[in-house]
Amino acid sequence: MTSSSVDCGQVKDSLKRWSADFDAKFASVLIPAGDAPAELVEAMRYAALAGGKRLRPYFVTRCCVLSGGCPEAAFHAAVAVECVHTFSLVHDDLPSMDDDDLRRGQPTVHRKFGEAMAVLAGDALLTLAFELVVRDLPDAAWASDMVGELARGVGWSGMIGGQVIDILGEDKASSVDLVRSIHAMKTAALFETSCRLGALAGGADASVLSALSRYGRCLGSSFQAADDILDVTATASQMGKKVGKDATAGKQSLPRAVGIEESRKVARRLADEAVCALDLFGREADDLRALAKFVVQRQH
Amino acid sequence: MTSSSVDCGQVKDSLKRWSADFDAKFASVLIPAGDAPAELVEAMRYAALAGGKRLRPYFVTRCCVLSGGCPEAAFHAAVAVECVHTFSLVHDDLPSMDDDDLRRGQPTVHRKFGEAMAVLAGDALLTLAFELVVRDLPDAAWASDMVGELARGVGWSGMIGGQVIDILGEDKASSVDLVRSIHAMKTAALFETSCRLGALAGGADASVLSALSRYGRCLGSSFQAADDILDVTATASQMGKKVGKDATAGKQSLPRAVGIEESRKVARRLADEAVCALDLFGREADDLRALAKFVVQRQH
Repeated sequence: MTSSSVDCGQVKDSLKRWSADFDAKFASVLIPAGDAPAELVEAMRYAALAGGKRLRPYFVTRCCVLSGGCPEAAFHAAVAVECVHTFSLVHDDLPSMDDDDLRRGQPTVHRKFGEAMAVLAGDALLTLAFELVVRDLPDAAWASDMVGELARGVGWSGMIGGQVIDILGEDKASSVDLVRSIHAMKTAALFETSCRLGALAGGADASVLSALSRYGRCLGSSFQAADDILDVTATASQMGKKVGKDATAGKQSLPRAVGIEESRKVARRLADEAVCALDLFGREADDLRALAKFVVQRQH
Repeated sequence: MTSSSVDCGQVKDSLKRWSADFDAKFASVLIPAGDAPAELVEAMRYAALAGGKRLRPYFVTRCCVLSGGCPEAAFHAAVAVECVHTFSLVHDDLPSMDDDDLRRGQPTVHRKFGEAMAVLAGDALLTLAFELVVRDLPDAAWASDMVGELARGVGWSGMIGGQVIDILGEDKASSVDLVRSIHAMKTAALFETSCRLGALAGGADASVLSALSRYGRCLGSSFQAADDILDVTATASQMGKKVGKDATAGKQSLPRAVGIEESRKVARRLADEAVCALDLFGREADDLRALAKFVVQRQH
């Protein structure tokens, strides 16, 4: 597959098949061993099993394989990053934050279960992510690195920190530097962490770990640039969520800072950089190359 | 010190000295290594460093020592449980949950920094807890057990699950069984986890681990029974937070289920059971015995 063109339909179909299999296993993990309240479990499963592209767990799995591991070695880490992603959507949708009614084409968790349950379901998904990321590792001694990696990607200097500067940015003048920071922390940090967790679970050496980190980081920023563009150009029914929100809320966004056309160029440039990061791999990384193209060409 | 009487002032003073030292070290951990937004760090530090009895980290530290470890081996686990406890207070105080304006004698985080920042500061404290609980362990191979223990105490079958049944219980008829479940999950689970984390960090054998688990579990339920009583009998200025809330909100509480006098008996019985759990230790556990008495005799 060349870097200049990619069949979006084919990538989508292939990802869809993969995610159907992942979702079945994901559902079986979302059953508590202990005595959890049924209402909480229902809200967590509602949020987590509503579809979604499952890009992050796909990266975990594929980066594990590219690092020499078997896909099973990364399974619980893959579920962990999707739990984190789901937790972030549930909390970001809250009335005190983005105040969204619709997510993945269905009512948001707080609209369906109430605000208190949405806060707590998010909290429980975040907690579960850490429980999972150390489960059934090929080597128990890796647990500490896995937890450290996940916490860095999620915490005050990662995704959660990014959500804070995104919210605080609503009161500020449009700034491309600020947009870059938001994209890096809010989105790229967890993409990078997904790739690194897979690489760690696969026993990657330093050069492989570094290459896959760069792939994840660049792809994450490219993905968020494309997301900012789609917020302007796509319809709500395409996206399964409200669009045009960035302008309404006065959010920092790439199109607002540099215009749509320049934003498209930035997204493509970042995707190309992600592809370059894969140079030390052969054809076995073609799916990740195709995904980098898909991320900027997608319509939702 | 006999089990029938304890000098509350002495226990309080001794805990106060310990917590002053702990707080100084805690403050130095609450400085991000990476590029975290200053406003987020400020909200987290505001919530975490506002005082508090620091009972849970004290249990972590002392249980480590009773298990044969040095206090330093449990330091980051001690900070981790206090981060978790702080996170739970910040989220429980939110308008969608208990809607409290006052905590530890000062405005709650959402009153001071806004609701979005309160949600995110709580999320970041929870994430930080997991980052810390695996830091500088005597043996890296213990990381997986430490994370699993923390996640079980906090997650859907632990503290967060307990908060859910507490909230759902507001619509239900008073039930002593329901109160017991709420106390066990919402409070005792994290007390037990604190003791177990300390024991694990100290390299406890099975019998020590089991004894300290029982101590934490019984003391946690005793503490929450006493808290329910104080919500009826204490003043807001004694407690540093609103009182009389259980009755107003129609909450499940022990006094509502069995009356004040019977509640006092239950609290004392549980504290006695906690003391019994320490039978395999000598005088070196006297401070934990005294604390069990303090918990039911305290006025705030």
